[in-house]
Amino acid sequence: MSKQATFYHAGCPVCVDAETQFAQALNPQDYSVEVVHLGETPGRIAEAEASGVASVPAFVVDGKPYHINFGASIADLK
Amino acid sequence: MSKQATFYHAGCPVCVDAETQFAQALNPQDYSVEVVHLGETPGRIAEAEASGVASVPAFVVDGKPYHINFGASIADLK
Repeated sequence: MSKQATFYHAGCPVCVDAETQFAQALNPQDYSVEVVHLGETPGRIAEAEASGVASVPAFVVDGKPYHINFGASIADLK
Repeated sequence: MSKQATFYHAGCPVCVDAETQFAQALNPQDYSVEVVHLGETPGRIAEAEASGVASVPAFVVDGKPYHINFGASIADLK
């Protein structure tokens, strides 16, 4: 069964670069990747924060946050 | 042709977790992943720094550094 991986971003250059390198790079046999643009869907910010996401770009895999470099703080997206 | 991705770590819990979630998760059809333990091979610290790695765990893909969460500073590994 594939694991769920959610990639949260905000369209910033750091985010787009990370999406290219990682969100599209995970083995599709192992991971089901959902890409969420928090700038366009601010209604999902609370969900990201609940998983521990403090900045974007970030993945949540198995319920745990993985921050990749730093694009923007979640606080700046509200 | 597969891209080269180098995962630098130092055996710390944050590193091991990131290795499990990402180093083993990249699509093997697209990426050739090398895992480098800087604690055991300090001779490669300079190479990591030259690619912009400031902390571990980190990937270098296409010559660019991607820091995933924070395990340890490169300075602490010297």
